[in-house]
Amino acid sequence: MTKHAEGSCLIRMGDTHVLCTASLEERVPPFLKNTGLGWVTAEYGMLPRSTGTRMRREASAGKQGGRTVEIQRLIGRSLRAGVDRVALGERQITVDCDVIQADGGTRCASITGGWVALRLAVNKLMKAGDIISDPLFDHVAAISCGVYAGQPVLDLDYPEDSEAGVDGNFVMTGGGRLIEVQMSAEGATFSRGEMDELLGLAEKGVAGLVAAQKAAVEG
Amino acid sequence: MTKHAEGSCLIRMGDTHVLCTASLEERVPPFLKNTGLGWVTAEYGMLPRSTGTRMRREASAGKQGGRTVEIQRLIGRSLRAGVDRVALGERQITVDCDVIQADGGTRCASITGGWVALRLAVNKLMKAGDIISDPLFDHVAAISCGVYAGQPVLDLDYPEDSEAGVDGNFVMTGGGRLIEVQMSAEGATFSRGEMDELLGLAEKGVAGLVAAQKAAVEG
Amino acid sequence: MTKHAEGSCLIRMGDTHVLCTASLEERVPPFLKNTGLGWVTAEYGMLPRSTGTRMRREASAGKQGGRTVEIQRLIGRSLRAGVDRVALGERQITVDCDVIQADGGTRCASITGGWVALRLAVNKLMKAGDIISDPLFDHVAAISCGVYAGQPVLDLDYPEDSEAGVDGNFVMTGGGRLIEVQMSAEGATFSRGEMDELLGLAEKGVAGLVAAQKAAVEG
Amino acid sequence: MTKHAEGSCLIRMGDTHVLCTASLEERVPPFLKNTGLGWVTAEYGMLPRSTGTRMRREASAGKQGGRTVEIQRLIGRSLRAGVDRVALGERQITVDCDVIQADGGTRCASITGGWVALRLAVNKLMKAGDIISDPLFDHVAAISCGVYAGQPVLDLDYPEDSEAGVDGNFVMTGGGRLIEVQMSAEGATFSRGEMDELLGLAEKGVAGLVAAQKAAVEG
Amino acid sequence: MTKHAEGSCLIRMGDTHVLCTASLEERVPPFLKNTGLGWVTAEYGMLPRSTGTRMRREASAGKQGGRTVEIQRLIGRSLRAGVDRVALGERQITVDCDVIQADGGTRCASITGGWVALRLAVNKLMKAGDIISDPLFDHVAAISCGVYAGQPVLDLDYPEDSEAGVDGNFVMTGGGRLIEVQMSAEGATFSRGEMDELLGLAEKGVAGLVAAQKAAVEG
Amino acid sequence: MTKHAEGSCLIRMGDTHVLCTASLEERVPPFLKNTGLGWVTAEYGMLPRSTGTRMRREASAGKQGGRTVEIQRLIGRSLRAGVDRVALGERQITVDCDVIQADGGTRCASITGGWVALRLAVNKLMKAGDIISDPLFDHVAAISCGVYAGQPVLDLDYPEDSEAGVDGNFVMTGGGRLIEVQMSAEGATFSRGEMDELLGLAEKGVAGLVAAQKAAVEG
Repeated sequence: MTKHAEGSCLIRMGDTHVLCTASLEERVPPFLKNTGLGWVTAEYGMLPRSTGTRMRREASAGKQGGRTVEIQRLIGRSLRAGVDRVALGERQITVDCDVIQADGGTRCASITGGWVALRLAVNKLMKAGDIISDPLFDHVAAISCGVYAGQPVLDLDYPEDSEAGVDGNFVMTGGGRLIEVQMSAEGATFSRGEMDELLGLAEKGVAGLVAAQKAAVEG
Repeated sequence: MTKHAEGSCLIRMGDTHVLCTASLEERVPPFLKNTGLGWVTAEYGMLPRSTGTRMRREASAGKQGGRTVEIQRLIGRSLRAGVDRVALGERQITVDCDVIQADGGTRCASITGGWVALRLAVNKLMKAGDIISDPLFDHVAAISCGVYAGQPVLDLDYPEDSEAGVDGNFVMTGGGRLIEVQMSAEGATFSRGEMDELLGLAEKGVAGLVAAQKAAVEG
Repeated sequence: MTKHAEGSCLIRMGDTHVLCTASLEERVPPFLKNTGLGWVTAEYGMLPRSTGTRMRREASAGKQGGRTVEIQRLIGRSLRAGVDRVALGERQITVDCDVIQADGGTRCASITGGWVALRLAVNKLMKAGDIISDPLFDHVAAISCGVYAGQPVLDLDYPEDSEAGVDGNFVMTGGGRLIEVQMSAEGATFSRGEMDELLGLAEKGVAGLVAAQKAAVEG
Repeated sequence: MTKHAEGSCLIRMGDTHVLCTASLEERVPPFLKNTGLGWVTAEYGMLPRSTGTRMRREASAGKQGGRTVEIQRLIGRSLRAGVDRVALGERQITVDCDVIQADGGTRCASITGGWVALRLAVNKLMKAGDIISDPLFDHVAAISCGVYAGQPVLDLDYPEDSEAGVDGNFVMTGGGRLIEVQMSAEGATFSRGEMDELLGLAEKGVAGLVAAQKAAVEG
Repeated sequence: MTKHAEGSCLIRMGDTHVLCTASLEERVPPFLKNTGLGWVTAEYGMLPRSTGTRMRREASAGKQGGRTVEIQRLIGRSLRAGVDRVALGERQITVDCDVIQADGGTRCASITGGWVALRLAVNKLMKAGDIISDPLFDHVAAISCGVYAGQPVLDLDYPEDSEAGVDGNFVMTGGGRLIEVQMSAEGATFSRGEMDELLGLAEKGVAGLVAAQKAAVEG
Repeated sequence: MTKHAEGSCLIRMGDTHVLCTASLEERVPPFLKNTGLGWVTAEYGMLPRSTGTRMRREASAGKQGGRTVEIQRLIGRSLRAGVDRVALGERQITVDCDVIQADGGTRCASITGGWVALRLAVNKLMKAGDIISDPLFDHVAAISCGVYAGQPVLDLDYPEDSEAGVDGNFVMTGGGRLIEVQMSAEGATFSRGEMDELLGLAEKGVAGLVAAQKAAVEG
């Protein structure tokens, strides 16, 4: 996608388009110095006119909003769950997820596309012989969900999402294990049964995303 | 607890102590003006020496960290899930949760104690005849959980929490419905079975918290 | 390019790619209220990995750097030079220029592509009958230049640019009049003769850009 | 008061309650490195609803206000006046003063309570043998004063304080020497005679506070 | 001094030079709207190379330091003590005190010179007939003091000031009443006797400053 | 001008007065460490009442505006164009330009006066034997220009400047070579002919400034 990044991926899920790049640095944050462990972190941003109404640029507002901070922490934590940090060695990979066009589900697209960028950057390191054993032991992908018009549904687009009283995100591995479950209700509640139903749908959805990741990497 | 606030509560869960106050204002945020709807919001802070090692004061750092922002958004969303905003009317209640001493589970203690402060402030409004129909239709309480030493456990204290690869929080109503489920793994994953087991434990734990809330309010 | 913006354009000049969007608002800045005059302004940003080495995200740094501020003021001033603000009427168009990939000359690409986005947004307004007389009385395009290895050259790419002791930018109208001339030397100087030679080259270069703008708008 | 701090004290003066904690660090600010001298510093904050009307949280405002900065500089300077920094050795003690409930005189309560927290932290160091000679050579305590309804009075509560045209603070040692005198008039003036009278009252007031400090430390 | 300001004064006390300007605005801060009362406020700054070693510019540091905030609050409070805010009427005068060259005592020079600028601005208002009754009922001037080498001394220059264990400032009216007394000890203490002696010296010093103010205003 | 700075100059061009100081530090920015090269940089500020209407102090606004940043980058770049950074050696000179009174052309006055301060500071270094070969190989001076009432004119004062549709600045060496050309039109355009005419005028104007610089340095 971009000639400079060690790995990159433009993911499109419906009308949501996110550019994900992976940048490698041969240094780690201070708390990891001399531990032999690597680090994977993420940053997230939206272009001002990625949305229906222009948003204020966070750089000119002078800080990242609470939503941005939450999302980039989620992306980083999710990707790290699939990384063997000993095998990665003392280096850092920063995954930037920049939303070019938004129509719901940007955080899940960022995780899924971010993993592809990370995979490509790691492949480069392995090809160059800088890493011997593969630090990515499984795929990581994510899908959004919600209860919309009384029905559990996956992959809400923006109009559905903004009307759903309950919405959430499931981050899973290629092997079907859970990394992160976030379900939240705004002015509403949900039952264990509804949650189980969504979880079942999500397992199927993630399987499809993992297949798409494989295709993208082999590309 | 404090003579100024419309409602207040000092919650102690183990060695975690959080001072929760509810402040009433007869105005709402701009997006709610002239809608007839009320608002409940929350802010969260930790005293610098609430922890084993002194933390830098966020006011002197010049901004709230990502963790603080995440937590206060969670508290606000959780409390709102139990509020009938039409019945509340066009007024705002801000719940401040300030951690005096921390030993794990501060966000869950904040939600549980914050609800008591909110309840007391609303009681005052009802007694004064400013509100006719009770806007709090159910209790809201929260409990932390994790997989520690291979075992699902509730209510982790700090040493357990920092070693748990998987940790989470369940926010529920008095009636046992779910408001928020957050489970996340840092460098680890978990199965649906483990999640179900935790959910079962949480249902019992929350029942106990709701009983304690009742005692506190009547107290 | 993007489904939300009133006008948009992805300009590629060599390996420099800039996404330009034009956003319309039916309000003007306070200093123009009730004057009947419109406003065109611009913002500029670079994606963190648009460059060879990842740059710190300005939103997380907490402010826009001096270079960013300079560039976005230049873009806005340049575009306004081709706008009849009476004909535009009391509305504002914000042109966002976000660099996806950088290889020199990003400010000139932003002006040239930004004009296309602006043109498309204005066309929309005219089609809808919101504007009667065309407020864009001429094309605006820009080209970078420098003295490289003793030779005046146009359109430096990054390796040339960073070695040029003298570099500059010419912003011109379709009719060949000047809007902005910026030539600056870092640890060097230049003669009137060298400047004239560059100006001659620039006139030819801008003519080519204007032709490309026409093709893009009609496209 | 709190299990984590090296020393702590919850001081109540009338309806003013301040939690003071002393935190020890085995390092000093850069300007004291390798001088053999220690440092005592202070930070001050008010919980948002410590006051009659909720105040904006300084952490969310993004900076400490002028009043906060003034007060914490005063507390630090006052406590240092009673410390032998050679005997303390190259270590730093930070005294945090957080106002839980405010009703006038919070800066004086912070100094008086802060000294108790400092005393307890130093006692711990001496017990552990880390310090041989006691660095606290005298008590430090403070009392607020004002001219209220034409009468010099000590220890104003909030309604008195906000009506006093002249108000001030005296910081003294246990031995009755002065550390800090701050008297200021807002839209008013005062005579030398009034000042002398207040000083006489303050000497008696501080004697009482010192007795209370002794009881608290031995307590 | 400067052609734009309503009143201005360049005060030199020893090697300390401060440019004071008074700026008039026909509006008051929100808390005074429709009260009929005026406001006088002050801001203080030091040019980066007003001192022996260049200081970082506060505008580039992104905030005013604690010392700056303290000083400008003191200047404003002091000047207001000599102002009849009813007679001033609903307008604001901002006194800017910018230190061109510093050699101790800048806050006292700012108050003394600031009063002259204020006087000149008020004279202009009176001459124009915008104010009938003089709102400045007395002079306001200030002098710094300290205990240096065991001796109470007035008007310390920088080398003396930085070695004085006790230093302070007295702000007084032309009639000899006190407006502000600030005495503080850093790592030292002082007796009532020493304080009295300083106060006696200050009374004489201020009388001289008031004479100089008269000369400047008539000048 | 000021007793502390290594070099200083108060330049008056019409009613524009700028205080320029040069501060020497025996260290360079990180990117120049161990390169043997020196650095010259500049900062710019306006006193709040240097203008007809009081401006907000940038230190209290919490950041330098875009105009300030642009100007100080221009001053630094211009001065560096006349400096042999090898001859300067690994040290930094910071030129502060503070506008005491403004009436148009402050950036040009800052460059011209800043060069004098720089010259004086370098002279001091050479006299002390810290520098052998003169690092300032030519004068640097600047003049503002514009097309006012259809006529190219130099050295606009503020009323002219704010009405000129085209305005610019020429920075030149004593030898007549160009360092920086900035011409910009706001809502207007200009021809090559107009530009040439201005350039001719500027050459004459700069010659006069260089003569004045010589007089000032020889003082």
